[in-house]
Amino acid sequence: MLVSTHNPLNIGAAARAMSNFGCLHLRLVNPYRVAFREARSAVGAAKLLADAEEFDNVAAAVADCSLVVGTTAVRHRELQHPLRQLEYGARLIRKQQPSARVALLFGSEKTGLSNDDLSHCHWLMHIATREEHISMNLGQAVAVCLYELVRDAKVKPERTKTKPASSGELELITISLFEALQISGYVNPRLTESAEMKIRRMIRRLHLESDDAEIWLGMLRQILWKLRSTPNKA
Amino acid sequence: MLVSTHNPLNIGAAARAMSNFGCLHLRLVNPYRVAFREARSAVGAAKLLADAEEFDNVAAAVADCSLVVGTTAVRHRELQHPLRQLEYGARLIRKQQPSARVALLFGSEKTGLSNDDLSHCHWLMHIATREEHISMNLGQAVAVCLYELVRDAKVKPERTKTKPASSGELELITISLFEALQISGYVNPRLTESAEMKIRRMIRRLHLESDDAEIWLGMLRQILWKLRSTPNKA
Repeated sequence: MLVSTHNPLNIGAAARAMSNFGCLHLRLVNPYRVAFREARSAVGAAKLLADAEEFDNVAAAVADCSLVVGTTAVRHRELQHPLRQLEYGARLIRKQQPSARVALLFGSEKTGLSNDDLSHCHWLMHIATREEHISMNLGQAVAVCLYELVRDAKVKPERTKTKPASSGELELITISLFEALQISGYVNPRLTESAEMKIRRMIRRLHLESDDAEIWLGMLRQILWKLRSTPNKA
Repeated sequence: MLVSTHNPLNIGAAARAMSNFGCLHLRLVNPYRVAFREARSAVGAAKLLADAEEFDNVAAAVADCSLVVGTTAVRHRELQHPLRQLEYGARLIRKQQPSARVALLFGSEKTGLSNDDLSHCHWLMHIATREEHISMNLGQAVAVCLYELVRDAKVKPERTKTKPASSGELELITISLFEALQISGYVNPRLTESAEMKIRRMIRRLHLESDDAEIWLGMLRQILWKLRSTPNKA
C-alpha cells in the first residue's frame, strides 16, 4: 500500500517488485494523479497497475485488513509503536494465518508516513541500513521488504483457531470509545486530534479477535447510548 | 560491480542501495558514458559515485578480488557455474574471511551478464522470484542482494521493554467496565454472574501492558463518573 507517492517511477518500481515477488494487490492512498497515470508502464507489471485500487485515506484502504504494518526509516522519532527490524517483522507476518489480509504501508518519498497514517498501524518495521544513510529509495525499500517476506515461505504458519479483527472493526471501536470519552469529558478539547490517535494506537495494541471485537463494539454502543441520554451538565 | 549499464537512474539507484547497506566501492565496467555522467546525483550517494572506478572490461575490474559472484535472473540457460539462491549464496559470501575482497557482478538491463562476463565468476546467484516474472529492475536487484548480504545473521530474539499488566490491574478494569455496563443496561440482571465472568475473561484476552492498563482504568472511571450522574430513567 503506497501512501501519497509523488514519483511515477516509484509507483512503477513498487509494482514491478510486487509482481516479482507475487504480491499482486496494490493499493494507492491519495497518490498524485499524474504520478499514478504515468506509472502504468512498469515492466511486466501492467496488469497489477491496472488492477490497483485507489483510496482517499488510510482508514478506508486498510478497512478489510486484519494486520497493518507501517514502514519507516527513522529509528529515533518518538515512535508510539513497536518497531521491528524487517527480518523479525517478516517472520511475525508470515506466522499470521494464510487467511489474514496483511497491509504493508509505505509513506511518501519525502516525509514517509504521517503520525495519522501510523496510528492505523499495529506495528512498524524498518530495514537495517547503515546509520549514516538510512533513507532508502521507495522502490528499493518495497523490493527488499517483499523479498524478505516471501523468502523461505516454507515456514509453516502457526495454527491458531482465532481470526484477528479487521482494521474496519477496530476503527469502529476506536470511534465509539472516543465519542464516549468526549461525552465523559476525558478528552481535552484542545488536544482532540492527538487524543484520537492515541486511542487508535491503544486499540491496535489489544490484538483483538474478530469475535471479541464485535462484543466490545456492542458494549461501547450500549454505554454510548446511555451517555447520550445524560443531561449536558451533571 | 555494474557491467554495461545503460540507464543513469539504475546506476544512481544501485549507488544509493550500496550506500544504504554500507558497500562503498562501486566499480563500473564499460558503462555508457552518458549514463555514468548523469548518475552523479543519487540521493545520499554522491561521494560513492564520485569515488566509483571505471574499467574497460571485467577482467581488469575483478583483478584484485578473491571471490567473484555473478547475478542472473535466468534459471534455465545452460549455466556452466553453480547457481545458488541468494539466501544461500549470501551465507557463503559472509563466510569468506573479512579480508577477502568480494565482487558482486550485475549485468546490463537488457541482456544481463554475457558468457564472457560469467566466465570471470566463481559462481552465480539468483533472487527467488515468481516464475512468471523473474526479471527484476537493476536497482532493486542490487538493493535486495546487498540487504541479504549484510543482514544480521545472528538472529537475536526481540527485546520487549513492556511489562504485562498485573492481575490486580486487570481486575480493577474488569470491575469498572462491568459497572459501566450494568448502568448502561447491557447486562441482563438475571445473568449477572456469568456476564461478569465473560467480561473478566475478555479483559484477560487483551494481553494488556501495565502502562496501558492504567490508561484504560482512567478512561473507564471517567466514563463511569459520567454514567453515574445520569438520571435513572433516561
